[in-house]
Amino acid sequence: MMRGVYPSNLCVYRAAPITRLRGVDQRTGLPVVGMVGAGQLARMTHQAAIALGQSLRILAADPDDGAALVAPDVVVGDYRSLPDLQAFAAGCDVVTFDHEHVPSAHIQALAASGVAVRPGAEALAHAQDKVVMRRRLTALGAPCPEWAPIGSADELAGFGDAVGWPLVLKATRGGYDGRGVWVVSSVDDATEQLASGTPLLAEARVPIARELAAVVARSPFGQGAAWPVVETVQRDGICVEVLAPAPGLSGDRADEAQALALRIAAELDVVGVLAVELFETVDGRLLVNELAMRPHNSGHWTIEGARTSQFEQHLRAVLDYPLGTTTPTAPVVVMANLLGGSDDVKPPSIDERVHHCMAHWPDVKIHLYGKGFRPGRKVGHVTALGTELAEVRARAQAAAAYLMNGDPA
Amino acid sequence: MMRGVYPSNLCVYRAAPITRLRGVDQRTGLPVVGMVGAGQLARMTHQAAIALGQSLRILAADPDDGAALVAPDVVVGDYRSLPDLQAFAAGCDVVTFDHEHVPSAHIQALAASGVAVRPGAEALAHAQDKVVMRRRLTALGAPCPEWAPIGSADELAGFGDAVGWPLVLKATRGGYDGRGVWVVSSVDDATEQLASGTPLLAEARVPIARELAAVVARSPFGQGAAWPVVETVQRDGICVEVLAPAPGLSGDRADEAQALALRIAAELDVVGVLAVELFETVDGRLLVNELAMRPHNSGHWTIEGARTSQFEQHLRAVLDYPLGTTTPTAPVVVMANLLGGSDDVKPPSIDERVHHCMAHWPDVKIHLYGKGFRPGRKVGHVTALGTELAEVRARAQAAAAYLMNGDPA
Repeated sequence: MMRGVYPSNLCVYRAAPITRLRGVDQRTGLPVVGMVGAGQLARMTHQAAIALGQSLRILAADPDDGAALVAPDVVVGDYRSLPDLQAFAAGCDVVTFDHEHVPSAHIQALAASGVAVRPGAEALAHAQDKVVMRRRLTALGAPCPEWAPIGSADELAGFGDAVGWPLVLKATRGGYDGRGVWVVSSVDDATEQLASGTPLLAEARVPIARELAAVVARSPFGQGAAWPVVETVQRDGICVEVLAPAPGLSGDRADEAQALALRIAAELDVVGVLAVELFETVDGRLLVNELAMRPHNSGHWTIEGARTSQFEQHLRAVLDYPLGTTTPTAPVVVMANLLGGSDDVKPPSIDERVHHCMAHWPDVKIHLYGKGFRPGRKVGHVTALGTELAEVRARAQAAAAYLMNGDPA
Repeated sequence: MMRGVYPSNLCVYRAAPITRLRGVDQRTGLPVVGMVGAGQLARMTHQAAIALGQSLRILAADPDDGAALVAPDVVVGDYRSLPDLQAFAAGCDVVTFDHEHVPSAHIQALAASGVAVRPGAEALAHAQDKVVMRRRLTALGAPCPEWAPIGSADELAGFGDAVGWPLVLKATRGGYDGRGVWVVSSVDDATEQLASGTPLLAEARVPIARELAAVVARSPFGQGAAWPVVETVQRDGICVEVLAPAPGLSGDRADEAQALALRIAAELDVVGVLAVELFETVDGRLLVNELAMRPHNSGHWTIEGARTSQFEQHLRAVLDYPLGTTTPTAPVVVMANLLGGSDDVKPPSIDERVHHCMAHWPDVKIHLYGKGFRPGRKVGHVTALGTELAEVRARAQAAAAYLMNGDPA
């Protein structure tokens, strides 16, 4: 069976009133969610907040950040500065994140001073530090590739000899979209990383059939909700496409992935959206690759493709509102990322491209993030819905290619 | 047949580049739409603008207006002041409206100075002045109730004796949501209106089976698109519910209504969304009741219920982008307005009500407009989707009643 909102009736008419630590917006009677970070995740969360009668408060590094261009309650500040975070949090009922880079100590300090920070520092550590994540998942019996923290060339040599070369070397903290990940065939390949002083871990390179993602949400009350498991298609370590639901995934396998993600969310006390990136191995196992505790690229399809989007769900979860229905709105949904090329000055202009894209694919939904086009940068995405995977996928890919290159091929 | 985007291929790869009078936002390469008025229509249009990489520029009467609470580019000013409008327009590629109250002369002056105003003054006059509208529709052969401009008691007496009493007396300009509309049984009933100096018109009171709305959009290029015809349910002259598609409406009748609305849009040179409010009479005729040239309450269901929402479509149209697919996303969609009661201070708070509404109806979509609750005021709406009209309607009504009164009955 497809898991939806789970457990389904726990939240109905609970007796205790909601407690808002800061009180609510006096003009609307509704709470204020603050999001640290002003990228596309905050931008799309603001869209969802508007429907709920709210306006997202945003801590932006730069007034031209994508989310800062579309929301009025923007504080320009540094997420690495505790005073900046404190000043920001003073106007929020709840503080949450569009990235994992806020220092744990700052989150702990905010929480200690009475700010509701969701997810909390302890949960978030598992999305910030891959060794913390691997250690905890291993303790929980969650399936992972074989792994080890690496502090020296000898440790790397020992691990590689045990699990086989090549293997995957990762920076423990801070990597994303393929950054901070290296495939190495020997200790010599890792000289630079070992000399850098960056904390590292190594993982066995498992034979991967494809990558999946199980995106779920959890509220402080303990309610969980899961969207259908998706396939994520990567190129050069960056997600280029998401296929929802994952084609050909058996019901049992989908259940296993959703149950695993919901269990991780509960065990780690996650609040908000949790994306569990998974490997499906050629011998049919599911292994956890990464965790993200925020709306995630693998859930963008839910804006049009599910009754409740991941952005609305994240707001509901961090506010301890009950979660929304995750039912898909179409049999097949494909999201294709718009990855900036190097041709930002070449005609046709982006305005023209949007025009022609709309003319040719009047049913493809366009999302642009307010960013300048730079090579490899995610500047937007498109979503196509339908019934036949090959047709829907071709439509999404062609529209995305046209928007990026002025050419649908 | 159900009309969708029409004509369907005219816009594909047209040769001429788009012309933007003002140039585009230098940060994003995308155009800036300015909307005069900062109510819920502007608020929801801003949500749609964000997806298209834009941010709506808004002329607000008050910084606490619903749309001004959620958008960064807000100018506080008076839509009755030409200098305020000019200053506002200077930052816009296109100026459009969330209400019909901007004086025609100001719109003409803006256009004369090179501002792209859409819809234009001439089109908009038909939504501002009911005599202008009736005269034009009559000339076009569009079906209307019998009507006459009324300048004196004698004219009213003559019209009433010709079409029968009671009849409907209307203020030519400025009425909405039942204001400026009176049912009068004799000239004596109209003493106050006749003495007020307000320009009036009278219409025969036709026996109405129900009210319908045909919502369409049209671009300057001439492309048109129609959503399915809906039934609008009124209480005390205010729309309380919209049923999409209109239950039991024959395909021929739906075609007739859509074709009529598309023809009116073309003949009047409307740009943007046009809502044609219709009476379905007990003897089976369709008569035009009112016109609105902006996103309209009868189209709110399209946010979740159609592939392209009326808000995105309005932006596409005024920017001369090609129009989006209007296909419904579910067999039955019901929108119920949240009309403020007098109990805004009674517990549970709105925050609590939202909580319990989400718990009980996890699949109902909530839209709150950032307004204080005042009697009769539209403070939001809910949308329910499904397959059985009675079930979907009951769900939408119960959720709306609970949000308004803390009681689903």
